[in-house]
Amino acid sequence: MSGSTIGDHFTITTWGESHGKAIGVVIDGCPSGLSLCEEDIQIYLNRRKPGNSKYSTPRKESDLVEILSGVFNGKTTGTPISLLIKNENQHSSDYNDIALYYRPGHADYTYDAKFGFRDHRGGGRSSARETAGRVAAGAVASIILKQLHIELITYTKSIGTITINYNRFDRDEIMTNLLCMPDAIAAKEATLYLDECIQQKKSSGGMIECIVKGLPVGIGEPVFNKLEAVLAKAIMSIGAVKSFEIGDGIAVAAATAPENNDSFMIRDDIIAKATNHAGGILGGISDGSDLILRCAVKPTPSVSSLQKTITQSKDETEISIRGRHDPIIVPRAVVVVESMTAITLVDMIFSNMHSRMDAIENFYL
Amino acid sequence: MSGSTIGDHFTITTWGESHGKAIGVVIDGCPSGLSLCEEDIQIYLNRRKPGNSKYSTPRKESDLVEILSGVFNGKTTGTPISLLIKNENQHSSDYNDIALYYRPGHADYTYDAKFGFRDHRGGGRSSARETAGRVAAGAVASIILKQLHIELITYTKSIGTITINYNRFDRDEIMTNLLCMPDAIAAKEATLYLDECIQQKKSSGGMIECIVKGLPVGIGEPVFNKLEAVLAKAIMSIGAVKSFEIGDGIAVAAATAPENNDSFMIRDDIIAKATNHAGGILGGISDGSDLILRCAVKPTPSVSSLQKTITQSKDETEISIRGRHDPIIVPRAVVVVESMTAITLVDMIFSNMHSRMDAIENFYL
Amino acid sequence: MSGSTIGDHFTITTWGESHGKAIGVVIDGCPSGLSLCEEDIQIYLNRRKPGNSKYSTPRKESDLVEILSGVFNGKTTGTPISLLIKNENQHSSDYNDIALYYRPGHADYTYDAKFGFRDHRGGGRSSARETAGRVAAGAVASIILKQLHIELITYTKSIGTITINYNRFDRDEIMTNLLCMPDAIAAKEATLYLDECIQQKKSSGGMIECIVKGLPVGIGEPVFNKLEAVLAKAIMSIGAVKSFEIGDGIAVAAATAPENNDSFMIRDDIIAKATNHAGGILGGISDGSDLILRCAVKPTPSVSSLQKTITQSKDETEISIRGRHDPIIVPRAVVVVESMTAITLVDMIFSNMHSRMDAIENFYL
Amino acid sequence: MSGSTIGDHFTITTWGESHGKAIGVVIDGCPSGLSLCEEDIQIYLNRRKPGNSKYSTPRKESDLVEILSGVFNGKTTGTPISLLIKNENQHSSDYNDIALYYRPGHADYTYDAKFGFRDHRGGGRSSARETAGRVAAGAVASIILKQLHIELITYTKSIGTITINYNRFDRDEIMTNLLCMPDAIAAKEATLYLDECIQQKKSSGGMIECIVKGLPVGIGEPVFNKLEAVLAKAIMSIGAVKSFEIGDGIAVAAATAPENNDSFMIRDDIIAKATNHAGGILGGISDGSDLILRCAVKPTPSVSSLQKTITQSKDETEISIRGRHDPIIVPRAVVVVESMTAITLVDMIFSNMHSRMDAIENFYL
Repeated sequence: MSGSTIGDHFTITTWGESHGKAIGVVIDGCPSGLSLCEEDIQIYLNRRKPGNSKYSTPRKESDLVEILSGVFNGKTTGTPISLLIKNENQHSSDYNDIALYYRPGHADYTYDAKFGFRDHRGGGRSSARETAGRVAAGAVASIILKQLHIELITYTKSIGTITINYNRFDRDEIMTNLLCMPDAIAAKEATLYLDECIQQKKSSGGMIECIVKGLPVGIGEPVFNKLEAVLAKAIMSIGAVKSFEIGDGIAVAAATAPENNDSFMIRDDIIAKATNHAGGILGGISDGSDLILRCAVKPTPSVSSLQKTITQSKDETEISIRGRHDPIIVPRAVVVVESMTAITLVDMIFSNMHSRMDAIENFYL
Repeated sequence: MSGSTIGDHFTITTWGESHGKAIGVVIDGCPSGLSLCEEDIQIYLNRRKPGNSKYSTPRKESDLVEILSGVFNGKTTGTPISLLIKNENQHSSDYNDIALYYRPGHADYTYDAKFGFRDHRGGGRSSARETAGRVAAGAVASIILKQLHIELITYTKSIGTITINYNRFDRDEIMTNLLCMPDAIAAKEATLYLDECIQQKKSSGGMIECIVKGLPVGIGEPVFNKLEAVLAKAIMSIGAVKSFEIGDGIAVAAATAPENNDSFMIRDDIIAKATNHAGGILGGISDGSDLILRCAVKPTPSVSSLQKTITQSKDETEISIRGRHDPIIVPRAVVVVESMTAITLVDMIFSNMHSRMDAIENFYL
Repeated sequence: MSGSTIGDHFTITTWGESHGKAIGVVIDGCPSGLSLCEEDIQIYLNRRKPGNSKYSTPRKESDLVEILSGVFNGKTTGTPISLLIKNENQHSSDYNDIALYYRPGHADYTYDAKFGFRDHRGGGRSSARETAGRVAAGAVASIILKQLHIELITYTKSIGTITINYNRFDRDEIMTNLLCMPDAIAAKEATLYLDECIQQKKSSGGMIECIVKGLPVGIGEPVFNKLEAVLAKAIMSIGAVKSFEIGDGIAVAAATAPENNDSFMIRDDIIAKATNHAGGILGGISDGSDLILRCAVKPTPSVSSLQKTITQSKDETEISIRGRHDPIIVPRAVVVVESMTAITLVDMIFSNMHSRMDAIENFYL
Repeated sequence: MSGSTIGDHFTITTWGESHGKAIGVVIDGCPSGLSLCEEDIQIYLNRRKPGNSKYSTPRKESDLVEILSGVFNGKTTGTPISLLIKNENQHSSDYNDIALYYRPGHADYTYDAKFGFRDHRGGGRSSARETAGRVAAGAVASIILKQLHIELITYTKSIGTITINYNRFDRDEIMTNLLCMPDAIAAKEATLYLDECIQQKKSSGGMIECIVKGLPVGIGEPVFNKLEAVLAKAIMSIGAVKSFEIGDGIAVAAATAPENNDSFMIRDDIIAKATNHAGGILGGISDGSDLILRCAVKPTPSVSSLQKTITQSKDETEISIRGRHDPIIVPRAVVVVESMTAITLVDMIFSNMHSRMDAIENFYL
C-alpha cells in the first residue's frame, strides 16, 4: 500500500521532505474546463504559511506555488496537475542534534524502526510541511466545490479549555484574528492563554470544526466508503489529529433516542430535518443538511522545556528542542482540515454520478 | 467507487440485505496455510448474534456460517474465501409500513434519494445485519493476528453516562456480563439504566474501546495511510459510530506539551515509552506500545415511542416503530469494532513487508 | 494485491474452486434501477456451459445461477449483487492422481510453488470453471451496455489454421454452429479438423474476436488506463489466452504510415474515419468507430496422449490425463471474452462521466 | 478512475505535457535503503532521449533528471521519490496549425471529444514525451530488480518485415547499433529499409521483445492479476503499441497440444521445463523459466506526406505534418517497454511476499 496517494477519482499524491529541494503534489482526475491559475491556489497556501504571527513558527517560507502541468490557456485540461513549492528557508543545522536522539511525540523513532534510517532534517517527510501539498490540492478541490455552490466554513473551535460561544459566532472573525476563531472574545482569551504557554515553554492543543453548506443529498458509498468513513480517514491522516467526530460526535454515547433522532419535515416544499444531531449524514450518505465534522489537534510536541528521551544508540538522555516551532498548530491546521474535507467531497461527488441507471442513460443517450 | 470492499492486501467484500436470502463476505488475500474451519468463525459470529438477551433484538438467527471456497483439507489455500450466512427469521411484514415513510435516524431517506428506491425490508442493506459479514471476516483476521502473537481486547467502555472504572478492570467480565463491560459494578449500573430506558421506550448510546497488544513497531504507511487514518475509516464505516479516537483522543485538545508527550526510555533493553498518551502510534506508524482506539455509538434510532416524520409522498406524519430492535446496540457492536480493527491491522501488517530493501532481499535471495 | 477483484467503479470479485461447494461472483457498483432476473443471467451462462457437444468436456453442470442480494422487486438496488452457482457434477476421484504430479501446461506446479500446497481437485481455483463467475457478471454488464445501445459481437475467428472468410460473415451462424464461427463453411472445415485432433488425442488452439458497436467517443483514461490497456488486462486474465490485439494488432509491425493512419472525414454530418486500422481507439480513448479486439487461445493442455512430467517429489514420470476435458476451449471461451470486454467497458463508461467540469455542473446544478 | 497512476505497491504517477514547463513522475512505495543517484536514472533516460540519430526526431532535449525527494545521503528513504525533467527545446510554433485540425492516427480528436479542448502543442499529454517519466521510474525499478538478480534484455525484434535471426543473436549489438537489434545483419537491412521509408516520406512499424531472466517462481496473483494480465496492461498503455504476446503468443492459435505443452523435468536438482512455449507463466504465476513478452508498435503517424483529414470546425482538408518526428519509434520505445516491464515486476514481486502464512510468521516472529 503506497501511502502518499488518496482518492479514487479525484486523486492526489503528495511528495517532499521538510528540508529537501521542494515539496509538491500531483492531482489526477481533475475535470477539464475549470478556470485555474497560480493565484487561485496561492490564496489557500497563504492561510497555511508559517511565520504569520508569534503563534506560528518563525520559519519564513514564501510558499510560492508553480503549476507545471495540466493547465492550458487558463483552464484545466483533464490531465494531471503537478504543483511545486520550493523549499527556501531550511536551517538544517538547527536539526543536527535531532539526528542522534528521538524527540518525544515525534515520528523519529517509528521512521527509523520502519525504514532503517530517516531524513532527520526538520522531521523529513513527517514534518507538517508536507501539508502544503494537501492545501494546494485542496485549493483546486475547493474551486470545484464553489462551482457546484458548495461552501466550506472551517475554524478553530477551541484552544486549551477556551471554546467559542456559538451565540457570538461571527464568520468574518475567522479570517481576521490570528487564531481563526469565529468569536472575537474567545480569540482574545485564547491569546492570553497562549502567551502564558509560551512563557512556560509549553504548547497547547485545540479543536477544529468544519461545516459544509450546500452538499447535495446522496453523496457517500455504503458500506465501507460511507461519507463519514472516507472523511475520517482524510482528517485522521493529518499529523497531530487524534480524534474525529461527525455531528454530535462523542456526545451520542451519553444520549438517548428518540432525542438523538432528527425528525424529518417539509420546509419550503423540500425534505428537511428539524434538528441535525446526525451532522448531515444518514447511513453513510449525505442527507442535505449541513455536514458537520470536528477534530482534536494535539499540542505541538516540539517545546523548549526539558524532556527525557533516548538516543539512537539506546542511551537515556535529556533534551531541549531548538529550531523554529509553533506554540500552537491549530490555526495553521484549519486550512489543512478544510483542504482534506474538500478533496474527499470532490472524490465522493464524482463517485455518485454513476449510482443510478437513469442518470447514466441521461448522460450518454 | 464501489463501497462494499475494504483493504488493499487483505481485502473483504460484504454483500447482502437484512431480509434477502443470505448475507456474506468474500475475503481475498488471505495467505495460504492458515488452519481454518467453520467453528473458528462461528465463535466470533455468536458474539454478535441477536437474541442473546433482553438488551438485544428478539430476532432469532442461528447465524450459521458456511465456508464455500478457499479452504482445503482444513487449511486456507490462498484463494478467495467465500462465507455465507443464510437469513432465516425474516419478519418482512413487520416492515411493510416503513416502506411508506422515512424513519428518523435511519437511512431510508438517503437511500431513496441516492438510488431512486430501496429494499425497505428491515432496512435492507443499511441494516446492522450487514455487519455479520464483517465479523466473519474479522474472525479470519483475528486468527492471523493470533498466529503473530497480537491480541485484541475490546469492550464496552460506557453506556449512557455510566463509565467503567479502570481500577476495577476485569478482563473476564467482558465475556461474562451481557453488556461486555470489563467492570461488573459498572455493568450492573448500566443494566439498571437500560431497564429504565426500555420502560421509557428509549434507547441508549455508549462507547467502545479496543486495545491491541503485541503489535510490532513499524506498521502504518504515511502520509495518507497512517495507521490511525485507515483504522478511522474502518471504524467510522460501522453504522451508528459517530466518533473515533486514538490514545487520549479528544482530550488532547485541552492538553499541553510536554505533558502530552510520551518520554522514550529503555526497559529490559528495549525501547519503550514512560506513558502512552499517543495510543501506540507516532507519525502514523505503530510505536510498539499498546494501540488504543475508541468510538462513540449512537442510541438505536428504532424506538417505539412516537416520532414525527414524513411519508415518501412528502406528507408529515407521526410514527411508532414496530419490529424487533435493540434498546442498545453497543454490546453487539463490540465484536464488530474488534473485527474491523483486526481486518485493518492484517492489511497494514502485510503492507509493511516491503518497506525495506534489505527485507525484500532476505525474502527472495 | 488481492487478485480476484477487477474494475474500479463496476467491480467484480469472483470466488470458488472447480470441485468446491459452489462458485460465484459479487458485483459492486452496479447502478440502481436496472431490470434484472436470474433468467437474464442464465442465457449468458448457458453459452459457456459444459457438455453441449463432443467438442466440449462431457462434465454436466446445469450451472443454475441464484441471485442472493442486490435485486428487489425485479430491479437492482445499487448494492452488491451476489450470484451463486452450485457445483453439482464433481468427479473428484478422477483427479486423485493429479494430486501427485504436475500436469504440463497447467498451473499445478506454480500454485504449489506460490502457496505451498493446492486444492488439486479439477485444478481448483485455476480451473476454467472460475470463468462462470465472470460470465454471470458479464451478463449484468452486457445488459447495462444494451440499455446504452452498445452491442458486442464475439465469435471464433480461427481454429488451428482454419480462419473465417469475412466475405461469408454471417452473424446468425455464431449462435448456430457448435464452434461459434460466423462462417458456416469455415465451421464445417474446423469440425473436420477437430475430429482429426480428437482421433489423435490432441487439442487445438484458436482465435477469438470481439467487435463493439455503438461505443461513445471519449471512453478511456490516459495514460495508464488507456482503453486498450484495461481491455488487455481483462482479456489476458482469462486462462489460456496468450495474445491480445487491438485493430490491426500485430500486423502494424510490418505496416507503414500514412497507410496505417485512418483519415478523418465527415459522414452524415458526423466525424468518422475512412478506415479503421486503429480498431476504434486513438491515444487510449474510443474514437466512435467499431472497437475491435482479438486474442489467441492455446490448445487445452489436458490431453490423453502420453506426456513426460515430474511428480511432486521430483521424480520424472510419464502421464496420460484422464478426466473430462475439452478438445478445444475456444467456443466456450467466446462468451468469456465478451463478458470481460463488457465488464471493462461498463467500468470505463462510468469513469468518463466526471471528465469535464460542465458535465459535472449539469449533473448537480 | 484517474489514469496517470499504475501499480498497487510500487506505484508510479506520471505528469506533464510535451510543451509544458516540465514532465515528471512520482514513485511511491519504493523500499528504503536502495542506493540511488541521478546518474543511475540518467543512463536509462539517455536510451530514450531524442536526437540520437537520423532515425529519431531531431528535437534536442538533454532530458536531465532531478531528484526532488525521497533520497537522503544517497539512499532511498521509503518516502515518495519525485523526479523532474525540464522541457527545453519546445518549438511550439511548429504546432500552431495542428491546433486547427485533427491529425490522422493521433489523439487530437479523441482528446477534444473527451475533454472539450486540448493542449495541442506537440500533442500535449498524448505525446510520447510522457514516456520519459515512465523510463525514469523504470530505472528505479530496474535497480531493485538488479539487487534481486533479475535481469531484463529488451530489443527490437523486427522493423517492417525484417526480423532478427536468433542464430545470430548478439546481446552486445542491442546497445551498439542505432536500431537496438541484437543482430548486426538484420540491423543493417533495417537501416536500408528505413532510408527508403524516409525518402518516401513514410514511417515504419516494428516489434519489441523483452526477456526476463532470474524471476523467482510464484510471482503473479490469479485470477485477475495474473502476471501476463498486469504486464499486458502496462505494455498496452504505451502509446502506439497495438498487440501484446506472452511466450508463443499469437502462434498458439494454430498449435496443438501436447506439442504446445512444456514438459516438466529435473535439471540440476531443480524443477525445469524442457521447452518454454508458455513464456515463463503458468496459470498466471511465474514458473521459473525465462519470461518472454512481445509487442507490436505501429508506424509513427506523423509523416510529411499528404493526408486527408478534417478541421475542428468539421471541414475536410489535406495536411502535411511539419515538426520534428521519428521515422520509426521502435528503437526509442525499447527502453520504455523494458521500463514498464520492470515497474510491473517490482509491484508483483512485492505483492507475493504475503502469499503464505509461514512467510509472514518468519517475517514478524
